[in-house]
Amino acid sequence: MDYVFSERAKNLKPSAIREIFKYAADPEVVSLSAGNPSPEAFPSKEIAEISAKIFAENPTSVLQYSVTEGYTPLREYLKDYLKSSQNIGSEKDEILITSGAQQVMDLCSKALLNEDDVVVCEAPSFIGSLNTFRSYNGRLAGVTVEPDGMNMEELENALKSNKNVKFIYTIPNYQNPSGVTMSLEKRKKLYELALKYSVLILEDNPYGELRYSGEPLPSIKSFDTEGIVIYAGSFSKVVAPGLRVAYTVAPREIFQKLVVCKQGSDVHTNIWAQRICYEFIANYDFEGHLEKLRSIYRKKADFCMELLDKYAPKIKYHKIDGGLFIWCSLPEGTDMPEFCKTAVENKVCVVPGNAFLTDENQSSQCFRINFSTPDDVQLEKGIKILGKIADEYIK
Amino acid sequence: MDYVFSERAKNLKPSAIREIFKYAADPEVVSLSAGNPSPEAFPSKEIAEISAKIFAENPTSVLQYSVTEGYTPLREYLKDYLKSSQNIGSEKDEILITSGAQQVMDLCSKALLNEDDVVVCEAPSFIGSLNTFRSYNGRLAGVTVEPDGMNMEELENALKSNKNVKFIYTIPNYQNPSGVTMSLEKRKKLYELALKYSVLILEDNPYGELRYSGEPLPSIKSFDTEGIVIYAGSFSKVVAPGLRVAYTVAPREIFQKLVVCKQGSDVHTNIWAQRICYEFIANYDFEGHLEKLRSIYRKKADFCMELLDKYAPKIKYHKIDGGLFIWCSLPEGTDMPEFCKTAVENKVCVVPGNAFLTDENQSSQCFRINFSTPDDVQLEKGIKILGKIADEYIK
Repeated sequence: MDYVFSERAKNLKPSAIREIFKYAADPEVVSLSAGNPSPEAFPSKEIAEISAKIFAENPTSVLQYSVTEGYTPLREYLKDYLKSSQNIGSEKDEILITSGAQQVMDLCSKALLNEDDVVVCEAPSFIGSLNTFRSYNGRLAGVTVEPDGMNMEELENALKSNKNVKFIYTIPNYQNPSGVTMSLEKRKKLYELALKYSVLILEDNPYGELRYSGEPLPSIKSFDTEGIVIYAGSFSKVVAPGLRVAYTVAPREIFQKLVVCKQGSDVHTNIWAQRICYEFIANYDFEGHLEKLRSIYRKKADFCMELLDKYAPKIKYHKIDGGLFIWCSLPEGTDMPEFCKTAVENKVCVVPGNAFLTDENQSSQCFRINFSTPDDVQLEKGIKILGKIADEYIK
Repeated sequence: MDYVFSERAKNLKPSAIREIFKYAADPEVVSLSAGNPSPEAFPSKEIAEISAKIFAENPTSVLQYSVTEGYTPLREYLKDYLKSSQNIGSEKDEILITSGAQQVMDLCSKALLNEDDVVVCEAPSFIGSLNTFRSYNGRLAGVTVEPDGMNMEELENALKSNKNVKFIYTIPNYQNPSGVTMSLEKRKKLYELALKYSVLILEDNPYGELRYSGEPLPSIKSFDTEGIVIYAGSFSKVVAPGLRVAYTVAPREIFQKLVVCKQGSDVHTNIWAQRICYEFIANYDFEGHLEKLRSIYRKKADFCMELLDKYAPKIKYHKIDGGLFIWCSLPEGTDMPEFCKTAVENKVCVVPGNAFLTDENQSSQCFRINFSTPDDVQLEKGIKILGKIADEYIK
């Protein structure tokens, strides 16, 4: 039988990153391509303890069906926590627990995107989200990321020239892949422009808590008096990604639609994992844990940048103060795809920059490296190899 | 701001069952409306033991990101288990682990349904699946369920008269809500008709292992030499639903598309829960556990049918030999919605039959009761009340 797929699905491809993972599975390969948190960052002991306690006290509570909205104590705790720590959420908002932040993108697409509706996003942006928008036939309009965030003239042009813009997708902190943090001024401007053109903002903040230095900037959601921002937060980078627990803070009417969509997607998120997240953030030293994470990643990020300076001076990169990624660029005229291919042949995987563009066929001089997954020995080995290849390619 | 939802989502409503759950939350109300497995059926002790072992040996393995396809040992075990026990799966098929069987419906809809494509389904059928098909703008064409399954003439008419039928959705064993098991003859006929009209079959089998008596019938997937059947199985009813672990056995090309769609939906299913399911079915006495479940539910089903015979003789029902639901009917001319409303006022919740129809506004004389959630005392109390109301309504 010839299988005929839906219009939305027929052109979907596995993400380029996944394809690279196949090489990365080779134990001899240094993978700088993943985005995995460092295993030493997982609060394994605490999770084991919480899990044992749940099973000793009331196993049925994590084994029976639960409600779509999410575990009530977790929703209530997050409501207070986000409000008091970051001024996120108002009386007009509700919190929905999701199966990873990827599901926030999926549910928002399902609830909001019609055929050929436009999603304005950063260029480059997170490939996983772009693929989700594509999987609902959303059209992507990319806006150049500058060292302080989206170019605001380009953004306004995109909002003006595209009909049916449904939302602006942004990762304002330590953006994946560019590592860029949007300035306060641009955050305010972005909110203003969204209001002016009556479009929603989908603010994705998986790395916000992984700030290594400086003061945190307020989230766009914290300005949201008009109910136009859907905020996505996640436990993947601050507790553990295998749990698949994240959340969205959304205006009530949108929340209600997302709940109905989630009912049809997976009924509810694994309830044991929701309990783990709740008990850990409410009853353990979550702030201390975040400090520990920041210190682990600060060290790793600094080490990675030192290695780049030392062994690969011809590779330019955006200096980061948070997140898990470093965005590197090769001089104009260098064949980036060939560079990345040579790297793989020399057993180092990085992600070619065009994978993060709204059109993968556009050219790019950039590639992304991740420093949280490899250990220091691997990282040094990998960057040395990249440096050698750069010396050959860049005259 | 006026929120404008997508065409697919704007008419979605929370399921009628969920609305009834609000009443059912009142502890004085006897809920015969849920579909929860009995908590005594959960292998809590074993799950606690497996979980403790995982955290003692290798916590990172359940906390790190994992692959979209699912935990490899679980996929491989299921492949052998399904093949040897039920002749499900061939070399043309692959197994994808999903976040509940609801996600199989979601991913199949995403991958296969275009605007206005038709899903042929049983009438009545499982409301959760119908809502998922609706959420991708699928049109539903219902085929009457007879005591031995779909009416085959109606099915052929539906396939003939509807353009763009994409798949036939069927629950062949102890169908929810009707309790009906499709005969072997009709299973074969259904497969033939699907082949003849070049449509796929989506076979949903959550209750297949909950057979109380008689010999199991072969699944439709077991005849599938041509690669037209997508089979959905679940651990919700045989291990625990809060885990949200299910699976699909699908022709490779479809599997690949489902994997890409799942990547955009939730990246992968909670990996701890996948490990729990794997260890439990592979290393514990799963057959013995299933026997225990069957004995629990057989007793509860028999008790419920005895109560109906004794206290509510005016309510007719379909005798069941498996599953969790009993489908009741009131004589022609009885006002079923009023009957159900009076039941709620008398603190018994059942689900009105029209909730399970392709058009909820159609009239129905039926309602569904569930016997697995309430204990014996509640069940007796609830059926007695239903019997009294029936005596008032049915002269």
